[in-house]
Parts: sequence; C-alpha cells; structure tokens
Amino acid sequence: MNKKLIIRLLSSILLVEAVAMIPSLLVSFYFGDGDAMAFIVTMLLLLVIGLPVHILSKPENANLRAREGFLVVPLAWVLLSVFGALPFVISGMIPNFADALFESVSGFTTTGASIMTDVMNQPRGVMFWRSFTHWVGGMGVLVLTLALLPKLSGRTSHLFKAESPGPTLSKLLPRMGDTAKVLYLLYGLLTAILLVVLMLCGMNFYDASIHAMGTAGTGGFSNYSASIAGFNSPLIEWVVTLFMLLFGVNFALYYKLLRGDWREMKNNEELRWFLGIFAVLALIITLIILPQFEGSFFTALRYSSFQLASIMSTTGFATTDFNLWPIAARMLIFFGMFLGGCAGSTAGGIKIIRVGLMTKQGLREIRRVFQPRKVQVVRFEGKAVEESVLHQVCVFFFMYLALIIFGGVVLSFNGLYDFETNFTAALTCVSNVGPGLGAVGPAGNFAGYSDFSKVFCSLLMLAGRLEIFPILALFHPAMWRK
Amino acid sequence: MNKKLIIRLLSSILLVEAVAMIPSLLVSFYFGDGDAMAFIVTMLLLLVIGLPVHILSKPENANLRAREGFLVVPLAWVLLSVFGALPFVISGMIPNFADALFESVSGFTTTGASIMTDVMNQPRGVMFWRSFTHWVGGMGVLVLTLALLPKLSGRTSHLFKAESPGPTLSKLLPRMGDTAKVLYLLYGLLTAILLVVLMLCGMNFYDASIHAMGTAGTGGFSNYSASIAGFNSPLIEWVVTLFMLLFGVNFALYYKLLRGDWREMKNNEELRWFLGIFAVLALIITLIILPQFEGSFFTALRYSSFQLASIMSTTGFATTDFNLWPIAARMLIFFGMFLGGCAGSTAGGIKIIRVGLMTKQGLREIRRVFQPRKVQVVRFEGKAVEESVLHQVCVFFFMYLALIIFGGVVLSFNGLYDFETNFTAALTCVSNVGPGLGAVGPAGNFAGYSDFSKVFCSLLMLAGRLEIFPILALFHPAMWRK
Repeated sequence: MNKKLIIRLLSSILLVEAVAMIPSLLVSFYFGDGDAMAFIVTMLLLLVIGLPVHILSKPENANLRAREGFLVVPLAWVLLSVFGALPFVISGMIPNFADALFESVSGFTTTGASIMTDVMNQPRGVMFWRSFTHWVGGMGVLVLTLALLPKLSGRTSHLFKAESPGPTLSKLLPRMGDTAKVLYLLYGLLTAILLVVLMLCGMNFYDASIHAMGTAGTGGFSNYSASIAGFNSPLIEWVVTLFMLLFGVNFALYYKLLRGDWREMKNNEELRWFLGIFAVLALIITLIILPQFEGSFFTALRYSSFQLASIMSTTGFATTDFNLWPIAARMLIFFGMFLGGCAGSTAGGIKIIRVGLMTKQGLREIRRVFQPRKVQVVRFEGKAVEESVLHQVCVFFFMYLALIIFGGVVLSFNGLYDFETNFTAALTCVSNVGPGLGAVGPAGNFAGYSDFSKVFCSLLMLAGRLEIFPILALFHPAMWRK
Repeated sequence: MNKKLIIRLLSSILLVEAVAMIPSLLVSFYFGDGDAMAFIVTMLLLLVIGLPVHILSKPENANLRAREGFLVVPLAWVLLSVFGALPFVISGMIPNFADALFESVSGFTTTGASIMTDVMNQPRGVMFWRSFTHWVGGMGVLVLTLALLPKLSGRTSHLFKAESPGPTLSKLLPRMGDTAKVLYLLYGLLTAILLVVLMLCGMNFYDASIHAMGTAGTGGFSNYSASIAGFNSPLIEWVVTLFMLLFGVNFALYYKLLRGDWREMKNNEELRWFLGIFAVLALIITLIILPQFEGSFFTALRYSSFQLASIMSTTGFATTDFNLWPIAARMLIFFGMFLGGCAGSTAGGIKIIRVGLMTKQGLREIRRVFQPRKVQVVRFEGKAVEESVLHQVCVFFFMYLALIIFGGVVLSFNGLYDFETNFTAALTCVSNVGPGLGAVGPAGNFAGYSDFSKVFCSLLMLAGRLEIFPILALFHPAMWRK
C-alpha cells in the first residue's frame, strides 16, 4: 500500500473542496442571509486538516496500483460528502446530520433526491452550495482534482476510471491531467451557455445558476417546491429538456465536435440508441397521457418529453407529478430509470451503451440457436467488442439489479410505504435519478425514512455513482489486509 | 429442415395428449359430473388429427438439428396447450377460449395462476385434468413422449435440452429414452408417496391426487378456494411444505441416491444454496410476521415456511394471503419469486444454480480489483465452470429480467391495477410461480385482465417454462427462412 500517496490524494480532495466552497461563500456575502459563517467554519476545518497533511505527506513515488485507486476513490467521495454536509448542519438549514449527509451525497452523486420538505425561503448561500455539489459531482471530483493539480497525474488512470461512468474509458489526450482540464473546460462552457439561455428566458442570475448547475450535473435540486414548473414557462421547459439530453451525451463527442469532427457524432451508435429510445418512449407516453391534457398533443408532448428526459438523463427535475399519470406511463418512467444516459456523460443509470451491448448479446444467443457452430461477434460502433468486456457488462448488470432488489428489501424494513415506493426508492438512488414512484415521487421526498435508511440510501447513491464495484470493494476483507 | 420429422414429432405429442386424458376421463365416468363428453370429443379430435399424420409422415432420418429442436419444442407446447384447453371450453367450465388457454398454459407450465373465480363445485373430471397438466408439464411433455416412444430418441438431445430447466443437462443414462423413463419412474414414485401420505393425513383420494399432482409439478392449482388452507390441518401444511421443497431439488440426485450414492447429494452445492437461502429467508419472514400470530413462533414459522417453500419451488399453493403481511415480508416473497428451485427439478424461476453462478461472478469482479492480473476461476460443485457457460448464464439473467420488465409494461396498458400488481404479474408468469402481489396475489386472480393480456401472459409462462430462448427464437425471422 502506498499509504503516503493515498493520504496525499485524500488531503488534496479536502483542499479542493475548500476552494469549491468559495463561490457559495460569495453568494452568502452577496445576499447576506446569515449563512456565510457556515462556509467559513467548514473551509477553515478543511484547511486545518488538509493543509498540514498535504505538506507533511511526501510520497516516494506517484504510482497508484488498482487496489489503491479503488480505495482512494470511494474514500474521497465519502470524505467529500461528510464535509460537504457541514454547511447544511452549521447553517441550521438541515440540523440532523443523517439528513444533511443524505442531502450532500445526493448532491455530489447528482441524484437530486431530497429530505427537505421546504426548499423555498432558505439561506441562499447554502442552497447555492447544494446545487454546486451537483456540478462538481457530475464531471467528477477526482477529475477536478487532476485538472487543478496536474502533478498528481503520475499513473492515476485508475482514479479516472473508477470515477468515470461507462464500461470503457475514452482518453482524449495522452496525459490524464490534460484530459481532465479539457473535460472541465467543455463542461464549464456548456453550463455557461445554458446559464445565459435561461437568463434570456427570464430567470434571474441566481435561479439560472442553480438550475444550470442542476441540469449540467444531471442532478435535479431546485430552489422551487414545484421544481421547473415553478417558472410557469413552456420555453424554459423546452430549453431544460434539450439541455438535460445534451448533458446525457458522452463529452468525448463534444470535444471531437469542437475539433471539427462531425462524423464521430453522426456515427455514434450509443447516441443513436439514446435518442432513439427517448423518441419512442416520449411518443408512447404522450399518447397515454393525452386525455389528461384534453387532447392537446403538444402540451402532452412537452410534459412527457420533459419528464422522460429528466428520468433518462437521471436529472430528476419535474414539471408535473407523474405519479398521477396512468399506470402504463408510470411503468415506462420506471423502465427509463434503469437506462440512464451515455457513458462519459454526467448521467447515471446502467448507461445506454451497456443496455445496447446486453440487448445485442441477447440477440446473439437467439442467433446461436440457428447457427450453433458459427462464431458470432457482437459489434458496437462498427467494431467487434471483446468477449471479456461483454462478460463484464453482464456481470455489472447483475450486480446493479441485485443491489436494487437488496436495497428495496432493506428499505422495506422501515415498515413504511408500499412495494412501489420502496423498490423505486432503491432504484432511483442506485441510478442517481432523484424521484421515484409512490411516496418518493416528484411531489414526495425521502424525509419519512429512518436515519439508518438515509445513510443506507447514501451508500446506494455512492455505489450507483461509482458504478458499484469501488463501493463493494470497500467492504471486502482483502481491501483491509496488509 | 427435416419437415417430416418435425410433423411426426408433433403428431406424437397429440397422441400422447390423448393418452394423457384417459385418467381424467375415468374420473369423469366415476363421478358422473357430466363432463365425460368433453374428454371424448377432445380425444377423438386428437386421434383424428394425430393418427393419420403420424402414420403418413415417414421421416428419412431421425436426426434433428438444433434449429429444428427449437422449433419442435415451443410448437409442441403451444399445440398441447391449445388442445388441453378444449375440455375446459367443451365442458362449459371456462367458456371463453382465451381464459381456457390461459388456464391450460398455466397448468402445463406448472404456473398455477388462474382466471377462475370459483374452483369449488366444478365438474371433477375437468378439475382433475387441470391438475394433471401440472403433473405432465412439470417433468416435461417431450420427456414423456420420449419415455413412451423411445424409437424417437435418435438424436433428440436438443429436444430434451430445450425442455429441461437449468444451464446444463445431466444425462443419467447414455440413451435419452432411458433417461426419460428413469426420470418419469422416479417422478411417479415420489408423487405416489406424497399421495399416500396426504391420504394418511386425512384427505380423500380425489383431493389427495389433485394436490399431489399440483405439488409434484410445482404447479399450485387446487380444488379449494382457500387452497391448502381449506383442509385446516397443520400436519398437511408441513407435509406439503416438505414435498414442495423435495420437488424443487434436481431429480438426478434422487436417481443417484437410489443407486446408493449418498455423497452426491451431501456434496451438492446447488442444494446447499437452495436450502440455505430457504432457511435464512423463512426465519427472517417468521420474525417479521410474528406479531400477526400473537408471538407464537411455531405458527408463524409454519406460515412463513409454507409460503416461502411455495414461492421458491414456484408451486403457488397458499395457506394465507401474504398480501396482508408487512411490506418487508412481501418484499422478501417478491425476492423469492425470482430465485426458483434447482436445475433439473420441476420448479421454475431463474434456478438456484444460476443465482449462485451470478453471485460468484460478482464476487470475482470484486476480487479482480485486488488482483487484476491473476486468472480467477469460478468454481461450482468443486469444478471450474467454463467461461462460456458463465457468460451464457449472465445473458440468460438479462433476458429474464428484460422479459419481466417488458411484460410488466405491456400488462400495464390494460390501465388496470397498480405497479405492484402489473410488475409481479409478469414476474409470476415468467417464473411459473402462480400468485403475485396485489390484485394477482393468493386471494386474487388474473380474471380482470383483457383477453389479449391473457394470451400475452400465456406466452410469458411458456417463455419462462422453456427458459426464454426457444420462445423468442420462434419470433426470429431466421426460424422461418428456407
């Protein structure tokens, strides 16, 4: 174990978190809602712990083995969430620590599930921080650390891989630090464009930044009880729908687009699956909910597109309570909660590329019935996919499902709610969506669960964000053996 | 395509079905409930169609390719179910053909889900046939055909494989026809023992045979509205619990046991998983439902063991309505519906061996975090399992889940019931359990669904019984290409 490097990396994370709180502190000063002290205390704590450790730990080498990477990443996320919860507690907005931790993990993992029963009339600095965690968590905290401290990027592709969603890692540039910088620049640019567009649609700067960060990270926290519906603007709804989808797309494609490579985007098979599934499901849901909108096709389409884009990109904003939709529409929303966005995006879920690869493997098994002796290759993006990758995708799918069913069973031990609520609560946590169905639907929240369940849900969200294995590995005895 | 052989096999199935109706016809004659004509008409129809086709079709060779096997097996099951539904319709017990087909498929696939709202006071010959389909369907219709017509067993291991549950086929004897005979003899012996024990417990011969066949096939049809609870006998409940578990065990183990090989059963890893999971879940459920039984541990244990054995063996008998249990117990029942029994038994579900292999693969992925370069082998029953088998098990699991979610979505288009009902209706059909949760629970039935949904559920049951691929292959264009 390269303990010194691990400690150095973790202390860097604390320092980066202190820096990440500066914008929220400025918002606190600007509005003067009395929450500035919450940030000052937390930041001092981060510096007092982080700085000496960072300076004193001098790792002999910057090489990180796989096992160490799998230790650093989940620990970093846990530390980040614990300290990220402090402003909620200190400001008094969320006095109970289990609640604050849930909210912080939900923020960083870009889930957007909340235990808050009232989001209006809260101190604006802390509310800004709540949404800022979405933005940082979306692209990744270790990615940000690498972008800010490129010296760390000795052999840190393990870190990158553990944090980046999807079965394969697309390295844009030879050096990890450069890739991280490019990703964050692109991410910032897209977020800034959304911010400006939202302001052009009539939002003030504060609301626009809250919702731009929530959309960019595919998080879903809002400072309005009615979420996006609070703005009562079809234009804003369409803009957010579009951008939720945009942030569900692999960022590598944007990079290539900026470099003039149109074809890569045009030929991207995962993108075609993503938009294809979205279009088909949106249309079916529109037809199902049409009677509720007195037959107005475009109104129904607006609501179905928004809700579906929100679910598939795992954002979790809402413009209506889909719990009131007919059962068939609710089942399709449930189906969408599994899927998620594209690999290499800020979206959660299983990821479209995995769903595509699983489907193609299913079809291959059927083809094998007819040609049992022929070697059948699964192709994606025109290339043959290695059998080991296919196999891993399958095992991931099993672990994903097993975790959701296990999670639903554990949550049901609260003795609360129904099958639908407990099962989709686990699903929405693991998929990092935000709302589920039933009592945890768009109009509900997680406040009713016990403290134990809130911590358990936090673990489910972390497991979902880090794609399960890094969190499970933490519980394996081999991780703690000398 | 060896068309002549396919037609010959299918005609044999019709003749076997005519023979299989003889016991029910005798029951009709004995009780004189006026349903004998229903069998006479159906049997004549089967003979008039089956005999000439059988005699005229003279296949040049008895070789069956995989593709042909995958055509014969599902077609045989469809034919069998269609003709098996006729006594229900002709006798007037179930006048609507979609209903009768559902009941017939539910019988043969040993699901035990019903559209009948009243099972008391029905003609006893037809009720006997309804349960007899469980018995034949449990061990397999093509297995029975091979046992009766051993000449067919030229190269028919494809048939056997398509109908036998589990990822691998255990050939007990070199010749398929002999294996089929041994299996049916064992099966008959165990059923006869249960029949005698039930009579010793106080059942009359008719009731005992209905419930012995329902238990042996892990089906679940009863001629009492309250199912096994109708006998009001804790002794009978324990006997049925034991036998439901026994019929969830791989029959190859009984064969080896009879030949004096104790160790095979003692060392069988799948059996240990099966009994281990059963014991743990039964205990947890007992503790959850304890307050409902005023703290009487053994009463609670009796109810939880019975219901869990019924669900895990995919039988579907009930002694209480688990819909009235606390949500945590209901979630565990839901979890049990996925598992199923052992491979090579009459039980449905994913099968314990697959669940074990999936779990071990998940653990292997975690171990790979620590030793990425070491070749990690998955062992079962002490032997290394081939990667191709592991991979297939994963893909099967995906298809199983995808089919259940797809099924739940399709059923929800009825616009009826809630999430719990539609989702578990699809699950209970694919897993061949019988009852689900909600409106299709032990106290409910499938009568409320539309005719289309009943036919769709029939397809789900067939897909579950034949382990998905044979049914899906029927819908693949390559099956019908020259």
